[in-house]
Amino acid sequence: MKNRLIVDRRRGCDLPMARVGIEALYVYSPNIYVDNAELAVARGKDPKHFTEGVGIKAFSIPPPNEDQASMAATAAYRLMERNSISPRDVFRVDTPTESGLDGSRALVSDVVGMLEQVYGRGSLSHVLGYEQKFACVSGMERYLDTGAWFAANWNTRRYALILATDVARYNLNSSEEPTQGAAAAALLVGGDAKLLQILPGALGSALRHEKGDFKKPSGRTVALVDGALSYASYLSEMKEAWLNFQSSVSQMGLIKPKADQSMLDYIDRAIYHNPHKKMVISAYASLLIHEWRSLPRWKQVEDEIGPEPSRAGMDDLTYYMSDSYRDYRRKFMKSQYFTKDFESRIGSSLLAPELVGNSYSVSVFVGLDSLLENDKEDLAGKNVVLCGYGSGSHAIIQENVIPEGYRDVAKKLDLMGLLGSRRKVTIDEYERIHRGEISPNSWDVKSETRFLLRSVGELETPSEGDRQYTLSE
Amino acid sequence: MKNRLIVDRRRGCDLPMARVGIEALYVYSPNIYVDNAELAVARGKDPKHFTEGVGIKAFSIPPPNEDQASMAATAAYRLMERNSISPRDVFRVDTPTESGLDGSRALVSDVVGMLEQVYGRGSLSHVLGYEQKFACVSGMERYLDTGAWFAANWNTRRYALILATDVARYNLNSSEEPTQGAAAAALLVGGDAKLLQILPGALGSALRHEKGDFKKPSGRTVALVDGALSYASYLSEMKEAWLNFQSSVSQMGLIKPKADQSMLDYIDRAIYHNPHKKMVISAYASLLIHEWRSLPRWKQVEDEIGPEPSRAGMDDLTYYMSDSYRDYRRKFMKSQYFTKDFESRIGSSLLAPELVGNSYSVSVFVGLDSLLENDKEDLAGKNVVLCGYGSGSHAIIQENVIPEGYRDVAKKLDLMGLLGSRRKVTIDEYERIHRGEISPNSWDVKSETRFLLRSVGELETPSEGDRQYTLSE
Repeated sequence: MKNRLIVDRRRGCDLPMARVGIEALYVYSPNIYVDNAELAVARGKDPKHFTEGVGIKAFSIPPPNEDQASMAATAAYRLMERNSISPRDVFRVDTPTESGLDGSRALVSDVVGMLEQVYGRGSLSHVLGYEQKFACVSGMERYLDTGAWFAANWNTRRYALILATDVARYNLNSSEEPTQGAAAAALLVGGDAKLLQILPGALGSALRHEKGDFKKPSGRTVALVDGALSYASYLSEMKEAWLNFQSSVSQMGLIKPKADQSMLDYIDRAIYHNPHKKMVISAYASLLIHEWRSLPRWKQVEDEIGPEPSRAGMDDLTYYMSDSYRDYRRKFMKSQYFTKDFESRIGSSLLAPELVGNSYSVSVFVGLDSLLENDKEDLAGKNVVLCGYGSGSHAIIQENVIPEGYRDVAKKLDLMGLLGSRRKVTIDEYERIHRGEISPNSWDVKSETRFLLRSVGELETPSEGDRQYTLSE
Repeated sequence: MKNRLIVDRRRGCDLPMARVGIEALYVYSPNIYVDNAELAVARGKDPKHFTEGVGIKAFSIPPPNEDQASMAATAAYRLMERNSISPRDVFRVDTPTESGLDGSRALVSDVVGMLEQVYGRGSLSHVLGYEQKFACVSGMERYLDTGAWFAANWNTRRYALILATDVARYNLNSSEEPTQGAAAAALLVGGDAKLLQILPGALGSALRHEKGDFKKPSGRTVALVDGALSYASYLSEMKEAWLNFQSSVSQMGLIKPKADQSMLDYIDRAIYHNPHKKMVISAYASLLIHEWRSLPRWKQVEDEIGPEPSRAGMDDLTYYMSDSYRDYRRKFMKSQYFTKDFESRIGSSLLAPELVGNSYSVSVFVGLDSLLENDKEDLAGKNVVLCGYGSGSHAIIQENVIPEGYRDVAKKLDLMGLLGSRRKVTIDEYERIHRGEISPNSWDVKSETRFLLRSVGELETPSEGDRQYTLSE
């Protein structure tokens, strides 16, 4: 397994392959949250419907003086401080997000403006960088794009920063309300991966034009969602990406499953894009059903939950949306075979997301942080597939390896501590924040250093939309 | 010069370097245009103020049944048809644009939907890809990002498509009205560059947080512009990027100017991001003043136009905005030294842009097409710097080489023909189109095959914002 990392023969000569990947990580989520059980009660629902049915116990919301740009800058600043990174060692800064603040301008411009308040004017004037979007999968796309620069030896300095940031925000009282959330992840990418190393070529993609699942047509600030279609699309594209991943990995000869095995048996950890826990469970269950149904072990599953319903005449999307399959999948999700497999391969990556809520493009990195902070096993040498997904719709499954010595860097992660020290807001306070009734400057600042939004230029003035930020004291 | 392309020693062994770059190109611009002299008259202005002062003779506008997504798909389709490219040979499709149609969804999803109408459902289901934004510079950023995949040998198939697309649209009667435009460029990127080959490392970037120059805050469909600031920012960042470019190229030992030379003397062609011709002339004049003022030849310039005004106490941006410098720059722009240099190094890249108008992220590729179609010299072996710029603000200067045999592929370019066969709309017709008074389906279709917008889902219905497209017969 490890030998395959040492030399990349595809280049035509035995050349040591750069250990491209994540050298350091910092995930930030704001310091106030909504308790989803309390929200359920306020909405006249059974609390378990939100905390277990949906699978989000609590979700972060940005206070009135933070937004997607300030969150990205805060994550970058804390990453750089904790890992002693100087701006002069960074050659590019990119901001994948689906919460862009302007139709033309890139969010990264505001972020660079904030960082230069700390590191000095012009300290990042040499960087490349822009903003990227494909619903929730842009963070994964950017991870690969940035990695390619190092694998190509095109990086002009030692590091690149990826600053994924998103705020998931839906209407008050909508069915999506319990799936909100907010986070930013700063990834330090380089050629000496210390947390997660990309395995080049071990990659599967799936992309399908789907217009109705999730959208935010120009002019809208809140997304429109078709829940059932969105769900089925996620399951379907994730499976397609898995099939393409399998095919790449087979061709590379990396994994050769025996007749009674699935390639999944060789995956140590899987980190899913996590809109809410139930969706991840459903997608993984769906994948296991697909992978196991032709293996000897399926007989045991059938003994416990009966045979799979017929899918005669249905394509994937229709089948995944059918009542009969949904019922069957639910039965499978409760079976001992599923539970054990799911817990060991995915469990540790779910602990932070169910406290952060949906964080869109950041979600897969929230899951990565969760794995690194919470997994009880020694992860060195283990492989990790990142399973990204974005509505519209596009899935990516991509294999990485956790390097020896990862713990030295992983111990600087602080998301679980940060989530534990948040303040709970009342439902009334949450609603006032959601409606924009509290101005940035009237919000009290009590927490670790971070960037704060001070004002937004008013409509129909020359400074319309201009955002002023400062570092908190 | 050519030897330096054969082997890339930075990789640690003498390995033939992939000839990464553009293998084929197709630039599309809609088939109707506004005559800027007529627009000037309608606005009570001297026609020369628009056609020469601004420097745009005509600008394309999308008819009611085309938009940024359909234009990108049309460009891709025509590129693929003319160069016999199959979707199965493409591993990624990206859409840099600042005219995104949705805050979450990526434009590439709609484009893939259109292309699969022609090439079959699922024919592009394997691709990677997303949408990218940094005002007008995202096309350049994407060109480099995509190139890195090939240089890294990470491409899983032979080609990648970059589909830059933009519509520059301003309010009727605004001062920006004569600088509108519309185009899409399809770039086929690969490891066997036939039109333009990237010279790795010969690259300079400049990025500065600037909030007021150009913006389209969420909810706006028309940009807000501070003309003077935008102008100065363009000049200033382009110079910064040039300084960083010089430093990279010096370190690589690629160009070693003698004491009485500027590095610019070694650049065969420069293609500028082109919002309008006057801006390009001003930026290039500003760069020449900077480069020449310390050389012996400056004496001759001073003999013709006098000494440069004092810049005591002014930073670049202030100096570039000052009346005294602006006047001096104008004098220099009329001098014989400037005119000759400008014409030979930049002239041929300006012919298409002054007929297309501003095309934002596409503009530099419109310039490239213009160079390849119009330059009278044999360009094989010549170096070309692409000079990208995006408000907010960010410039990139990056060196390429035109490969031997480029003419075989260049002869498939058709932008000049396309521009020559457009229909002129009257000012009245233009205004009705601009105000959205003509529905997609009532617009007559007479031209080569292209993708057409059929309808847009209405506000507050489940299909809000959904766009239906078909290929014209």
